[in-house]
Amino acid sequence: MPRNLAARRRLTSSTRLGALFGSRRIAIVGASESSSWAGNLLGSLRRGGGVDDVHFVHPKYPELFGQATVPTMGDLPTSVDLAFIMVGPGKVEQILSDAASVGVHSAVVLAAGYGELGDEGRQLQADLVDLALGLDITVLGPNTIGFINASLGISPWAVASHSDPIKGPVSAVFESGSMARATYEFAQAHGIGTSLWASVGNSAVVNSLDVLEYLIEDEGTRAIALFLETVREPERFMALATHATRAGKPVVAFKAGRSEEGARSAMAHTGAMATDDAVVDAAFRQSGVVRVESVEDLISTVGLLAYTRRLPRGRRMGVVTSSGGGCNIIADLAEKEGLALPEWQPETEALFRTLLPPFAHVLNPLDTTGFGHARSRPRPTKAEDDLMEMAATDSGVDFIYSMMTPLPATRPEDPTWIESRMEIIGGIVEQSPVPIILSSNTCLDIAEYPRQLLADNGLFLLPGADLALKSIGAMARWTEQRDRLDHRPSTRVAVAPFGDAHPVGVWAEDEGRGLVSAAGVAIVPARLATSATEAIEAARDYGYPVVMKVCSRDIPHKTDVGGVLLNVASADEVARGYDAILSSCLAGAPAAAIRGVLISPMRPPGLDLLVGVTVDPNFGPVVAVGLGGIWVETLADSSLRVLPITADEVRTMLGELKGSSLLQGARGSKPVDIDALSHVVVAVAEAALSLGDRLEALEVNPLRVTDTGIEALDVLVSTRGVDHG
Amino acid sequence: MPRNLAARRRLTSSTRLGALFGSRRIAIVGASESSSWAGNLLGSLRRGGGVDDVHFVHPKYPELFGQATVPTMGDLPTSVDLAFIMVGPGKVEQILSDAASVGVHSAVVLAAGYGELGDEGRQLQADLVDLALGLDITVLGPNTIGFINASLGISPWAVASHSDPIKGPVSAVFESGSMARATYEFAQAHGIGTSLWASVGNSAVVNSLDVLEYLIEDEGTRAIALFLETVREPERFMALATHATRAGKPVVAFKAGRSEEGARSAMAHTGAMATDDAVVDAAFRQSGVVRVESVEDLISTVGLLAYTRRLPRGRRMGVVTSSGGGCNIIADLAEKEGLALPEWQPETEALFRTLLPPFAHVLNPLDTTGFGHARSRPRPTKAEDDLMEMAATDSGVDFIYSMMTPLPATRPEDPTWIESRMEIIGGIVEQSPVPIILSSNTCLDIAEYPRQLLADNGLFLLPGADLALKSIGAMARWTEQRDRLDHRPSTRVAVAPFGDAHPVGVWAEDEGRGLVSAAGVAIVPARLATSATEAIEAARDYGYPVVMKVCSRDIPHKTDVGGVLLNVASADEVARGYDAILSSCLAGAPAAAIRGVLISPMRPPGLDLLVGVTVDPNFGPVVAVGLGGIWVETLADSSLRVLPITADEVRTMLGELKGSSLLQGARGSKPVDIDALSHVVVAVAEAALSLGDRLEALEVNPLRVTDTGIEALDVLVSTRGVDHG
Repeated sequence: MPRNLAARRRLTSSTRLGALFGSRRIAIVGASESSSWAGNLLGSLRRGGGVDDVHFVHPKYPELFGQATVPTMGDLPTSVDLAFIMVGPGKVEQILSDAASVGVHSAVVLAAGYGELGDEGRQLQADLVDLALGLDITVLGPNTIGFINASLGISPWAVASHSDPIKGPVSAVFESGSMARATYEFAQAHGIGTSLWASVGNSAVVNSLDVLEYLIEDEGTRAIALFLETVREPERFMALATHATRAGKPVVAFKAGRSEEGARSAMAHTGAMATDDAVVDAAFRQSGVVRVESVEDLISTVGLLAYTRRLPRGRRMGVVTSSGGGCNIIADLAEKEGLALPEWQPETEALFRTLLPPFAHVLNPLDTTGFGHARSRPRPTKAEDDLMEMAATDSGVDFIYSMMTPLPATRPEDPTWIESRMEIIGGIVEQSPVPIILSSNTCLDIAEYPRQLLADNGLFLLPGADLALKSIGAMARWTEQRDRLDHRPSTRVAVAPFGDAHPVGVWAEDEGRGLVSAAGVAIVPARLATSATEAIEAARDYGYPVVMKVCSRDIPHKTDVGGVLLNVASADEVARGYDAILSSCLAGAPAAAIRGVLISPMRPPGLDLLVGVTVDPNFGPVVAVGLGGIWVETLADSSLRVLPITADEVRTMLGELKGSSLLQGARGSKPVDIDALSHVVVAVAEAALSLGDRLEALEVNPLRVTDTGIEALDVLVSTRGVDHG
Repeated sequence: MPRNLAARRRLTSSTRLGALFGSRRIAIVGASESSSWAGNLLGSLRRGGGVDDVHFVHPKYPELFGQATVPTMGDLPTSVDLAFIMVGPGKVEQILSDAASVGVHSAVVLAAGYGELGDEGRQLQADLVDLALGLDITVLGPNTIGFINASLGISPWAVASHSDPIKGPVSAVFESGSMARATYEFAQAHGIGTSLWASVGNSAVVNSLDVLEYLIEDEGTRAIALFLETVREPERFMALATHATRAGKPVVAFKAGRSEEGARSAMAHTGAMATDDAVVDAAFRQSGVVRVESVEDLISTVGLLAYTRRLPRGRRMGVVTSSGGGCNIIADLAEKEGLALPEWQPETEALFRTLLPPFAHVLNPLDTTGFGHARSRPRPTKAEDDLMEMAATDSGVDFIYSMMTPLPATRPEDPTWIESRMEIIGGIVEQSPVPIILSSNTCLDIAEYPRQLLADNGLFLLPGADLALKSIGAMARWTEQRDRLDHRPSTRVAVAPFGDAHPVGVWAEDEGRGLVSAAGVAIVPARLATSATEAIEAARDYGYPVVMKVCSRDIPHKTDVGGVLLNVASADEVARGYDAILSSCLAGAPAAAIRGVLISPMRPPGLDLLVGVTVDPNFGPVVAVGLGGIWVETLADSSLRVLPITADEVRTMLGELKGSSLLQGARGSKPVDIDALSHVVVAVAEAALSLGDRLEALEVNPLRVTDTGIEALDVLVSTRGVDHG
C-alpha cells in the first residue's frame, strides 16, 4: 500500500484534481529551447484557448521562446495555479518547495528516473511523496507527459499535438505516457472528442484511480478509458468501477499482462505483485468494466459508448450496407462477437422491396446493391440511407449497423447534396425507433470536413468495420454486465471463530470435511478408522465397494504416496488395504502424523467438477470452477471470480466454461441441476471465506454430479498464521 | 465451371492482361457529368501520368468535362487500347461490338445488374461472356470499379482517389469493388506502394485467378493480396498459389465465410456452392497462402511481406522500444502470435548496459526508458536507435521488432536532426545481421513528409503495434508453410479398378474392411458369421470377450438399431447375442439385407481417433483427423486437408489438434508413435482416393491407438454412381 494513504487522499480529492486540471495560470520551470519537450508543451498550451498566463521560470536563461523568464518561483509577477516542472530528478524537490512558498498547490513533474528504475528510484519517489504531502502540493507524475483538458481548453501536454483538441464526451487515464500520446492522436484522428486525457506517470501522488473517481463525477465525461499497467488498490478499483457502472458511465479498460511475458514486463515497470490475469479479467467483469484487446479498440469502444445516447437492448443486429463484400465480412465479425443477425420481419422486407429490384436477395446483412444508386430519389439520399431508415422499423432487431460509403475528404465545390444528405441521416438516426450505429469501411483517419459534417449532424462514425464490430460487441458485454451487477452481494460472509482445533498449514481431510459440511455442502459419508477392524466395520455399514484414504495433515497429495484405494470390494480387501495404505505412506512420507484411514462408500461415476478457492496477493480470495479430467488438465478450462459471489454469478461462470454443454446434457447425459450446483459452489466459497484472513486455499475435487445429487468427494483446506496483535 | 473455358483462357492470358492493364489510350463511353463515376474516373486518369489519350464517346452530349466527344466508337479520331464502358446493362453489348469493330481488345464494364442479381442477371452475364469471346475482347467486370496500375501510372478507377498512386511492390486483386477501394485508400494512407490494384467485379471473363497468374509473373510485384468471396476453380487456385509460394512471392488472402451467416452471404452474392470454411483454410495452408482476418490485416501483412527483402529465419523476436507500456502490449501480442521472446545473450546485455543506467531492467521486450533520451550522443539518434542496432547483433534472435516514437508530421524548420537520424536508421536496418521490422504505435495515417522520409531511407513502417504483430505472425506462418510445401505429393493415388463387387451407396463393413486393409491399414480381425454356431466358433478362435456387429449395406448406423454388442464374454452370450442382433435389426431396419454378424476380438481401451474422408463440392476429397469422444463431439476439434497428403502433413495436422498433448503422452499415457500414426492416416486417405470419382465418404472410427499398435476398429465406406459414358 502507498504510504500516508489518508494524507495522499486529501491531495487527490476530486476538488483538488478539479483545481489541478483547471489550472489556467501556468509556470513552466526549467525549460530549455534545445529540448523538444518545452517547445511541444508551449505549442500545446497555445491550443484550446483556456490558458490565461504562461510564465517561464529559469535560473540561467533570461528569455525562452521569445518570452522573459524569472529566475525562481518566488520572482513570479502574479500568482499561478500550476507548476509544470521540467528539471531532472535531483532538482524537482527544491522547485516544489519554492512553488509551495508562493501558494501553488498543483504540479506536474515530467522527469523520469523515479520508481520505474529499481530500488534507488523507488526511494527517490517515496521521498517525493513525503515532500508533496508536507508541502500540500498535488503532484501529477513523475514520468508524466501531462494532461489535456479539452473541455476547458487547457493542455499542459509535453509532446507534439497536431490539431486543436476536439471537445467531447470521452475521458481517459493512462499509466503509460507514450500510450496516452498515441491514443490521443488516434482519438483526434477519428473525430472522437474528449473531456480529459491524463497521463498519471508513476502515480506517486495522483494515481489512475484518483482520476477515475474524479471522472465519475465529471459531468462532461460520459465514458472512461483506462490504460492500466497494474491494478492498484483492487478493492477501491472494484468499488469505483461498480459505482461508475451503476451510474451508467461505462469504464473501458486495456490492461496488458495476459501472457506470462506481458505480466513479467508489467511487473518490471511497476513493481506490482503477480496477479493471475484471469483474476483481473474476473474483477473487471464483476465490476462492469469492459476489457479490450488493443489500444485502437480501447478508443473506438469508449467513443461508441460515450457517443451513443441510447444503448441497444440486446444483441440482435440489423445491417444495411452498399458493399456486398462488406456484408460477408460483417457477418463473420458478428458471429465472432456473439451478435445475432435475425431475418427481417415480413413487413420490413416488403418495405425494402419498394426500393430494390424484385430479384434482389433480401438478407441480413442487407446488400443495397449498386442498383439502388441508379434510381432517382425524392430527396438527396443514397439507397443505403433510405433502406437504413426502413430497417430501423424492424421489430426483430435491437439496433441497426451500417457501414457507410466514404465521405468526401474536402468540401466539394457544390456541397448542397452531401450536406443535405448528412442532415437527413442525422434526422434518421435521431428519430430511429432503435439505435443506429455507423462506421467507415476501414480504419482511416477522418479529414476535417467529414468530421465537422458528422459532428454538425450529431453523428458518430466508428473507424472501420473490424473495430466497429469489436466495439459493438464490447458495448453488448457492458450492458449485460451492468444488468447483472445489481445482484452482487455487498457484504462478506461472517468469519467463523478459528479455534485451536484447526492447524496452520494443511488440514487433514476430516477437518476440511467438517468445514464444508458446516457450510451446507453435501459430502460423501466417511468414517475415520484407526484399525483394520474399524475399517471393516465402517465398510460393512456403508456397503461394498468402498474407498479408503489416508487421513493426515502432512499428506496433502494422498495418491502420490499410495494413500488412496478405490473400489475396495470385500472385508479381506479392506483389511489388506488398511495395511497397504499405512505401510506405503510410511515409506512415502515417513514423518507424517497419520490420524487413520477414512472409509467412504464408493460412488458411481458422474460428471466431476472442481471448485477451488485461492487467495490472490492483490485481489484476495478468488473462486475457480471447472470440469474435471481433461477439461481442467488439458484444456485449462475454468472460470474465476473474486469473492464474494452469488448463485446468479456462478450460473454465469458455468456458462463460460468451454465444456458447459456437458452441464446441459450433451453426449447423452442428463442436464445438471444448475440452480442446485450454483448454490453448492456458493456454499464452498462461503466455507472458504469463513476462515477470514487465515484462508490460504480450499479445494473440493471432485464435486460429483450424478442423477441422485451433487456431492463433494474430497476436500483440501490450508490456512496460514495471522498476526492479530 | 465457366462456359467456354479454353476460349476464355485465351482472352485472359498474361499477355492479354498485360495489354489491358497497360492501356495508355482510353475511350470513356457513356459518361455523364451528373454521375460521380465519370468525374472520379477522369480525376484518377489524370493522376500518375501514364495515360496518353482520353476520349469521350457519347451519342447525346457534344462535350463532357470541357472536352469534345464523338458519338460512337467508330468516330474516334485515333485508335485506343481500352474502352471504359459506363452505360447500363442493356447498352453494354452494342458498345462492345462497336469497340471490336475499331480494333479494341480490352474493356472495363462498370455496370452492375448482372450475375450478382439472380437468374435473370446470370443469363445476361453469360450472354456478355459469349459476346466478348466472339469479339475477342478481354472484359474486366461487369460490376467493377476498374484498376490502378501504379507502375505505369494508369488508373482507370471510377471512384474518388485522393492522392497520386504510390509506386511499390504490392499488388492486389479484389472480388469486391467497395473493398478494393477501401483497402487501396488504406494502403495509400500507410505509405504502402503498389504495382497493380484490380477490381475484377463479377469475374465474367477475367477472374481473380487470371489476375493472380498475371501477377505471379509481374516483375514489379513482390507480394499479392487477394480478397475472395469464393474460391473459383479450386485446383487451379491451389496450383497457382503453390507456384507463387515456390517462386517466393507470398500470397495473402482475406476470405469471408468463416461463420454460417458469412458463408450464406457470400453464396448469395456469388452463387457459389457451400464449401466448409475449414476446407478453404486447409487449401490455403497447403498451397502456402496466408489467411488474414481483416482487410487492415490484409494490407499490413502483404506490405510487410513485399517490403521485407530478407525474411526472418524463425520466430525468435528481439524487441526494442522506448515505451514501457508498449513493452507489455507487445509481449501479450507476441504470445498470441506464437512468437518467442528469448532472453538477450550476455554479450548483448553487456552492450546495452553501456547505454543504460546500471539499475535498469534489461528484459526482452527492452524498454529503453526515458533515461536514454537524456544522454548526449555522438550521432543524431535516439537511445532506441542505438539499442536497436545493438540488439540486432544478438545471436539468439531471428529478427528485431521496434515500435518507433512518432515522426514529425511536417518538415521541421530545421530538418537536419530528423533527416540525419532517419538516414542512420536506414543504414542500421540495411546492415543489420538480422531483419529489423519497424512499426508506429497505433494505426494512424502517415503524413506525406514522414512517408517520404521513410521511403528515401528504404524503411517500411507497419501501422501500429497490433497490426504489426499480426502481420509478423502471418509472415512466420508464410515462411513455415513455404518450407513444408516441397514435401507435398504432386500426383494422386492410382484408382483401383471398380468392379461389380462393390455397391453404389453404403458398403457393408466387411467390404470396407477389405478396401482399407488392401491400402495397408491394420484392422482388427473379424469373421462374418451367418449362424450362431459360426459366431461361437469365431469367438472361440479369437478368445473372449468379443464384439458382435451386424453386417449390412443397408445399416450404416449399426448402434442405432441395436446392431452392436460389446464385451460378449461366453459362448452362451454369443448365441443369445446373435439372435438379439438379428431380431433387433429386423425390427429397426426391416428392409435391410443382412449379410451376417461380424465377430471380432474385444480390444482394450486406448486413445481413439477418427479419420474421415469426404468430398467437398468444390475442392474434392478432403481428410479430417480428430480425437474421439468429447474432442470431436463437444469441442469440434479436428484438422482438415485437401487430398492428397503426405505423412509430414499429417504430423502437422495432428499438431493442430487442441488435444494434441494427449498424443504426446499427457495425463499419464504413453506418447503415441506419431510417425506410424501419420502413415496410417495417409493409408486411409489413399484407400479413399483409390475409389476415384466414385468416392462419397470413407470413415475409420475409431482408429484405436494402444501400447501394441494402431488399429482400425470400424470402417464405413460409401460411393456414388458415376456416368463414364
